Amino acid sequence: MKFCSFKAKGRESFGIVKDSGIVDLGKRTHFCSLKDFIAMGDLVNIDALTKIPSDYAFDEVEHLPVIPNPDKIICVGLNYHDHISETGREETPNPVLFARFSGSQIGHNANLIKPLESDKFDYEGELAVIIGKECRRVPEEKALDVVAGYACYNDASVRDWQKHTHQFMPGKTFYGTGPFGPWMVTSDEIPDPSKLYLQTRLNGEVMQDTTTNLMIASVQRLIAYCSTILPLLPGDVIVSGTPGGVGARRNPPVFMKEGDVCEIEISGIGILKNRVISEK
Amino acid sequence: MKFCSFKAKGRESFGIVKDSGIVDLGKRTHFCSLKDFIAMGDLVNIDALTKIPSDYAFDEVEHLPVIPNPDKIICVGLNYHDHISETGREETPNPVLFARFSGSQIGHNANLIKPLESDKFDYEGELAVIIGKECRRVPEEKALDVVAGYACYNDASVRDWQKHTHQFMPGKTFYGTGPFGPWMVTSDEIPDPSKLYLQTRLNGEVMQDTTTNLMIASVQRLIAYCSTILPLLPGDVIVSGTPGGVGARRNPPVFMKEGDVCEIEISGIGILKNRVISEK
Repeated sequence: MKFCSFKAKGRESFGIVKDSGIVDLGKRTHFCSLKDFIAMGDLVNIDALTKIPSDYAFDEVEHLPVIPNPDKIICVGLNYHDHISETGREETPNPVLFARFSGSQIGHNANLIKPLESDKFDYEGELAVIIGKECRRVPEEKALDVVAGYACYNDASVRDWQKHTHQFMPGKTFYGTGPFGPWMVTSDEIPDPSKLYLQTRLNGEVMQDTTTNLMIASVQRLIAYCSTILPLLPGDVIVSGTPGGVGARRNPPVFMKEGDVCEIEISGIGILKNRVISEK
Repeated sequence: MKFCSFKAKGRESFGIVKDSGIVDLGKRTHFCSLKDFIAMGDLVNIDALTKIPSDYAFDEVEHLPVIPNPDKIICVGLNYHDHISETGREETPNPVLFARFSGSQIGHNANLIKPLESDKFDYEGELAVIIGKECRRVPEEKALDVVAGYACYNDASVRDWQKHTHQFMPGKTFYGTGPFGPWMVTSDEIPDPSKLYLQTRLNGEVMQDTTTNLMIASVQRLIAYCSTILPLLPGDVIVSGTPGGVGARRNPPVFMKEGDVCEIEISGIGILKNRVISEK
């Protein structure tokens, strides 16, 4: 089953994604966001709701980030060997974690904003893991039990600000740089997140292409590690790292500019598509 | 004027701090948190409320983090020369930023939790800046206009987890490691945040001792830099960095253990005090 967050007729809501469009759950339940709905904890037993006809066609809504307001967005750096190689860094025994703030997120089809301050604006296609249950110190073997679902994420990066110091965060949380969508596919449909295929395309050209079994820290390991630090909550997002092929490490480098279209496609999930605009 | 967040009689609220105790604004206004109240934007014009007698003595409430639920907690690393020297690192032209999540915060007098996973639990006394107005790309000369107030922060750090990789965040956001209090003093009472005196004491012994004019990036510069990245919102917190004297860099190193009492005192604000407990 697929869930999304959206805005329609001036109102923010969330719903079920069907082939024919979107069923508005914001007006049919007492939950006001997908995060609250996930916290209810029983995503797959809502058969009755899926039989309702769609309220909106896809072109009638503005997609919002899958979870517009997560308590935490934990990003993982350097989690594929080919990306570590292209950066010239070394593998670490533990995951490389940094944060993105929710105010940097955008939805499917929204404008990806190249900030005024930089011309080094880069894509990073990634698998996003959405937590479904409050949990702490989850053992790896039980980690997938706390996952609500998966989505595509573009951890778009302002490379010069990322390198202002040794800490990545400034380049990783600019306004309008975190596409998250197009929707969440529930974990019952993706029993093994290491068996997915991920591709990033810029103006139709394949820039990143991987299978998720090449992650260094698996989804299970990431959940175990992150949940050791502090409780994970429903709606929290772990953005699991990007494979090789980022623009900054190409020869010559490729950076995103006004009018470019960036797509992140993950098998079993869908295509997250955004057009770049340049702040004037 | 001073504002705090607290829990009393099983209910979370916020209020005005007077010499005699706390006036409960949660029950006298339609705002449910200090963050929402700050967003109203007129903190200093509430004379009528200050004339109300206190509702609670200090020992009748449980202090919560000054802002329990900020949208962002932006921490600054390596922002005093003497701390940079003791770490053996080099000064960077731009501020070193990383994040803490709100679920790691605690209030004044709450237990500071040394996690199971580490014996390298360290204090970091810091000045916290609380944003009062939504803002983006604020010039330094106008930056203090967006400040609601100031508080003490203990950016307590799990040093081995901080050093698992080059990114600090894992050691900086463990559950129960972010004391924030005891209250916020509004910015009209602190016209110049570079003229404060900050001291950290462990079991009464002075461990850190500085004046805030020794910050490398001033409060104004931090606001200008952070607000370039994305909009700052009312209630956002910038934790402005710790001076020299951290436990990990002493010879021999000093780490916090069960029963230790850590106090952060800042002139014109007050004393943030927490006792360490060790997870079993």
